[in-house]
Amino acid sequence: MRQRNPKQKLLMGPGPSNPDPRVLRALSEPTLGHLDPDFLEVMDDTAELLRYVFNTKNELTLPISGTGMSGMETAMVNSLEPGDKAIICVAGAFGERMADVAGRAGAQVVRVEAPWGEPIDPDDVKKAIRKNPDAKVLGIVHGETSTGVLQPLDEIAATVHEAGMRIIVDTVASLGGVDVPTDRLGLDVVYSGSQKCLSCPPGLAPITFGEKAVAFIENRKTTCQSWYLDLGMIRRYWGSERFYHHTAPINMIYALNEALRIVKEEGLDARFARHKAAQEALIAGLLDLGLEPVVNEPYRLPTLTTVYVPEGVSEAEVRRKLMDEFGIEIAGGLGIFKGKIWRIGLMGTNATKANVVRLLGALREVLK
Amino acid sequence: MRQRNPKQKLLMGPGPSNPDPRVLRALSEPTLGHLDPDFLEVMDDTAELLRYVFNTKNELTLPISGTGMSGMETAMVNSLEPGDKAIICVAGAFGERMADVAGRAGAQVVRVEAPWGEPIDPDDVKKAIRKNPDAKVLGIVHGETSTGVLQPLDEIAATVHEAGMRIIVDTVASLGGVDVPTDRLGLDVVYSGSQKCLSCPPGLAPITFGEKAVAFIENRKTTCQSWYLDLGMIRRYWGSERFYHHTAPINMIYALNEALRIVKEEGLDARFARHKAAQEALIAGLLDLGLEPVVNEPYRLPTLTTVYVPEGVSEAEVRRKLMDEFGIEIAGGLGIFKGKIWRIGLMGTNATKANVVRLLGALREVLK
Repeated sequence: MRQRNPKQKLLMGPGPSNPDPRVLRALSEPTLGHLDPDFLEVMDDTAELLRYVFNTKNELTLPISGTGMSGMETAMVNSLEPGDKAIICVAGAFGERMADVAGRAGAQVVRVEAPWGEPIDPDDVKKAIRKNPDAKVLGIVHGETSTGVLQPLDEIAATVHEAGMRIIVDTVASLGGVDVPTDRLGLDVVYSGSQKCLSCPPGLAPITFGEKAVAFIENRKTTCQSWYLDLGMIRRYWGSERFYHHTAPINMIYALNEALRIVKEEGLDARFARHKAAQEALIAGLLDLGLEPVVNEPYRLPTLTTVYVPEGVSEAEVRRKLMDEFGIEIAGGLGIFKGKIWRIGLMGTNATKANVVRLLGALREVLK
Repeated sequence: MRQRNPKQKLLMGPGPSNPDPRVLRALSEPTLGHLDPDFLEVMDDTAELLRYVFNTKNELTLPISGTGMSGMETAMVNSLEPGDKAIICVAGAFGERMADVAGRAGAQVVRVEAPWGEPIDPDDVKKAIRKNPDAKVLGIVHGETSTGVLQPLDEIAATVHEAGMRIIVDTVASLGGVDVPTDRLGLDVVYSGSQKCLSCPPGLAPITFGEKAVAFIENRKTTCQSWYLDLGMIRRYWGSERFYHHTAPINMIYALNEALRIVKEEGLDARFARHKAAQEALIAGLLDLGLEPVVNEPYRLPTLTTVYVPEGVSEAEVRRKLMDEFGIEIAGGLGIFKGKIWRIGLMGTNATKANVVRLLGALREVLK
């Protein structure tokens, strides 16, 4: 067995992104017991910092002990009872997954679709709600990592709330890089992952539940199908009761705590502006190389840019050369975009013009 | 918000235990992408090392991206279809949880019970199987962390297999500290946690599925209710196909990889002997202090020792003083043992006579 020896690489795929060195150092701080008062303080700080990045006052705000997809599953199993109708918006791979996860949680799933590379049309949501006034929740992806679309939420959230439903929003690719207006739009359930724009290693899924979403948990008639993700119990550990549920991933929470401190030091507005500026520089450079963006303005997700692979160029070969010769990771497409697009992430600490210039220089060489 | 500043403490509760410094350093190695060839090699090594500690050749052997309890849930949702009958052995808090998790997975649960502090009687298992020949699985805890009992498995495993059922074994508190005879007894599903006798921080749940257990996954009629824990998909990422499922917790897997290398360097037999010798020294010292063990020989779990709190002594006060004055964490009881017992862990790197002497000295001072 060879010595494990991971090299420093520039992670410009859809995540994980490169954690800040401060975050990696935090990971190796001494492990404490999960009920140690010093650790409980770190938990409280972390929840408070998560409220800051989620733009919310929601009490029930915490990191789930799993990766981003565990956040999606936590959202669904704590928002649905078997047989409940759920409208799920599907315009990419993560919308597809949401429909799958909601179905496994026992929901009757109604799909609202848009072509990959385009946002969901609010009028289609209105039609679906008119046809399904008995639906309990609507699920939608804010930043669709498979297409690079940033989904506008204002009109859709208003429509959902007028109908008395709850809205569940996937912000795995947006939280910390794009404004997530939880309280402004009254988003009922919002979840994310640690490894993208928060620049923490993968392994935690921040989540926040609003008042109506908490009321659902408190008044549900059936037991949550997941014990591990049952927020009815987990909230008793993160709340003042400190009721033991499972052993929290202590060191990962140190890392998230440090990553969130870095976000707060920079400030959300400055952070969003940095992501936006980095993407603008990237798009300008990609156009200059003759590459065509997949997504039209104003729907480009600042944290993840998608471009078509030019005719006659091997998608995988370009990625292999970027990695082997330049130590830079970008990603190919998923689903219908497999082999047809590249996905370039500018997430968290990585969203800088210096990284953009480094990638463009390498890409220019490789495409020669 | 105060600077996060976790102190070095001696973690002698039921887990987490103190990770080896090498493991903490591994945590902060550079994050790689989850499909980076260098990371895929670390995954393969980790699976191979897990086969070593599980004593198995099972191909489907990997760490689930969650804490130990996610291992329990993975075992259940990948071994049961709704309506299946499951016999669950309950002789402590973790047996209770197993019954809860199996029920949430849709099983019809039949309980076999023993008093807390005692093992399950194989004759009671035989009776339950005679009454429920249609049961599909039997679930049992190997090392019951709430009582300190080590459950003998030979006779029960043979009985379960004679009846054509599968056996699911919880080794969260035993793997890496006590022999887990997966292949010798043909245990069908075995799971554990990273943070106990493997001396890695919490956040991963090693699991292994035998041939019959894999056949269940391949032939099930209903979709697994959990997307996140669906081994039918996860195995395609850990196997040669490398099909993307979720972003693996990269840095935690570095840590587990390093922790397992340390286990292998020491060798399982030497490791088990060290745990046994440390507990013998601990028990001798506790008896010398006039404390009475909860569990009778030969059922004492070497990795977690339970003793009664003497009359007139405040259980919590003793723990508080051990922590505040000596930097040592031990645990109180759960459930019916709350306030009545202490639980003292000697797990992984912590299982040394030096730590035993340190704890006994402190305990002698505190009990004065």
